[in-house]
Amino acid sequence: MDEGCQQIAEMGRWVIAAGLTSSRFGNISVRLEDGMLITCTGTMLDRLTPSQIVKVGWEPGPKDLQASCEAPVHRAIYQATEARAIIHTHSPCAVALSLLEPVILPEDSEGLAMLGAVPVVGGSFGSNELACEASSALRKARACVARGHGTFATGKDLKEAYTVACMTEHSSHVRYLVEMWRAAHRGLQEQK
Amino acid sequence: MDEGCQQIAEMGRWVIAAGLTSSRFGNISVRLEDGMLITCTGTMLDRLTPSQIVKVGWEPGPKDLQASCEAPVHRAIYQATEARAIIHTHSPCAVALSLLEPVILPEDSEGLAMLGAVPVVGGSFGSNELACEASSALRKARACVARGHGTFATGKDLKEAYTVACMTEHSSHVRYLVEMWRAAHRGLQEQK
Amino acid sequence: MDEGCQQIAEMGRWVIAAGLTSSRFGNISVRLEDGMLITCTGTMLDRLTPSQIVKVGWEPGPKDLQASCEAPVHRAIYQATEARAIIHTHSPCAVALSLLEPVILPEDSEGLAMLGAVPVVGGSFGSNELACEASSALRKARACVARGHGTFATGKDLKEAYTVACMTEHSSHVRYLVEMWRAAHRGLQEQK
Amino acid sequence: MDEGCQQIAEMGRWVIAAGLTSSRFGNISVRLEDGMLITCTGTMLDRLTPSQIVKVGWEPGPKDLQASCEAPVHRAIYQATEARAIIHTHSPCAVALSLLEPVILPEDSEGLAMLGAVPVVGGSFGSNELACEASSALRKARACVARGHGTFATGKDLKEAYTVACMTEHSSHVRYLVEMWRAAHRGLQEQK
Repeated sequence: MDEGCQQIAEMGRWVIAAGLTSSRFGNISVRLEDGMLITCTGTMLDRLTPSQIVKVGWEPGPKDLQASCEAPVHRAIYQATEARAIIHTHSPCAVALSLLEPVILPEDSEGLAMLGAVPVVGGSFGSNELACEASSALRKARACVARGHGTFATGKDLKEAYTVACMTEHSSHVRYLVEMWRAAHRGLQEQK
Repeated sequence: MDEGCQQIAEMGRWVIAAGLTSSRFGNISVRLEDGMLITCTGTMLDRLTPSQIVKVGWEPGPKDLQASCEAPVHRAIYQATEARAIIHTHSPCAVALSLLEPVILPEDSEGLAMLGAVPVVGGSFGSNELACEASSALRKARACVARGHGTFATGKDLKEAYTVACMTEHSSHVRYLVEMWRAAHRGLQEQK
Repeated sequence: MDEGCQQIAEMGRWVIAAGLTSSRFGNISVRLEDGMLITCTGTMLDRLTPSQIVKVGWEPGPKDLQASCEAPVHRAIYQATEARAIIHTHSPCAVALSLLEPVILPEDSEGLAMLGAVPVVGGSFGSNELACEASSALRKARACVARGHGTFATGKDLKEAYTVACMTEHSSHVRYLVEMWRAAHRGLQEQK
Repeated sequence: MDEGCQQIAEMGRWVIAAGLTSSRFGNISVRLEDGMLITCTGTMLDRLTPSQIVKVGWEPGPKDLQASCEAPVHRAIYQATEARAIIHTHSPCAVALSLLEPVILPEDSEGLAMLGAVPVVGGSFGSNELACEASSALRKARACVARGHGTFATGKDLKEAYTVACMTEHSSHVRYLVEMWRAAHRGLQEQK
């Protein structure tokens, strides 16, 4: 468990350094045999201490009060999928696209090959609806975006989840830039 | 007071690392029983030394000359609200939106839940008008944006004010991206 | 070879600090007399250890399995050009423009003088098609962009390749901002 | 002179940390009684060593070969103005606006109060034309932008020039965001 805590704390620094989310938002977990390690509520991702990471079981329990309010969503994802690590970020381009389109379609070649269509799911943060929709979507996708909220990226370990989180924002950023350019030029052509 | 200075200096580094403002702009204060600690004028937020943080009382006094020129605004906010810490930043998306709309309406779920509508207030920097409008707006809001100028974020402590400052810029960023996309696509549809 | 590894590791930190790519994407190589040193597959560019940099020869061999999957593209570039160092990044503005235009035309004065027209080439990552198109394009250009994928920047040493990589993204960024503004204002004029 | 070198080296780190320019672009100088200290050509601004900063006189001389190719522009500015420090950066929003408008008009309140209209000047880098136009413009302005090239920011010391450089890019960024939003919405209104 100590090693897991250190890996989560290090990943928190990576996630913030990569600009994926503000340090006060987002959460990280890893699967254990009998539950998960997850960041506590109210922490700053790039300044995690071991006491700010808590172990919770597969059933909701008293420790859930310390855990991130997204703990029910992480738990549902682990129970529905093979994921061994989850990173949740409030990445701006993914959040913006989730409010605009029913699914995020990467146009860059890595996003196309490694993510495919990224599902957008509903439900307010920490809710059963979000837990249900996100865990269902992640059976067939490595990442999903909660509408207007943020990315849930999964992987066989923290590094893979990090790669998926970076890729989701990169693909969203490129998609946004490309579609805005096309819309501006389509408008010009149709005026003619 | 030494502890307050250290907390302000640390917060200055956080604010710059988060990209909320240029290091030469912005100011930070915390409430004391008989006044406030506030950053001095002309400082760099990520390189604050204890001598660059000054205590001023509830009434304007000679120490105001050393303090940030926004000191009258901070003072008015403490007198009108329960805030115990204030962070002021020149965050670009919030500033841009403040020039475009009478109020900033978050569309992301955290902004909606934790900020609600962010008031835009008038008055030039350090002015009585700004002090009056900002302190009045912050009776019912955690953050406001001075038009064309920057964000005033409040909290029960520095960490909460930081969270509010981050959220205001994140919500403004997402709002800008979303509205620009919608305007571009609305234009295309209406051409048809 | 040890010196080459250290230079690549240091360049990895520069590339990430400059925001040219996510740390999990991109790769770097330098020419040797009888092959090249190249970053291994699955590495993080800002945390390279010597064991994550491998020497491969001019002919494909078993060590290619450890190397970045772009190794065939780097090899083809060294064989077709005088380049002594190559940096490959997934820089967002260059990737977006590569999906929109057949060639990236800088408008800033440095891009015009030092890059000229930046060719966009086809082929999926690591493919023979990409190796062929990129190496051919780089006979007459210092950088090219693989469509929807990323920049290949070359130089007489790592520092020059880094300059070219930075300039390609800067020129792409400026070009994107300028063209979006023009399209918006052209649309307004034509409505009149 | 040693102190001047240290101040320039420290300022180089500030300028890069603030994201004002890529580390391979831009240059910094301070006025001496009989000339100026200026960064050498080909340096990286955030990794300056004392040997990468050179003293040149008021007349062109052999040391000019080591100095940044913008040395003639810095020299002309010192001779025409009271400036004691100059920072030149390739800041993307200022460069983009310089290609679009004859002058950059800040809309944010600090830009309005402290910069006013920022002149855009012509001339290729290091040219007499640029030296002439920039030094002339800076008689009445704290900053100017060379068209398609970058910002020249002046001050009574390095810190003030840094503030001016930060403010020029911030004001350009806000101006770009605001004008793009207005153009998009003006287009919608005129369609009605």
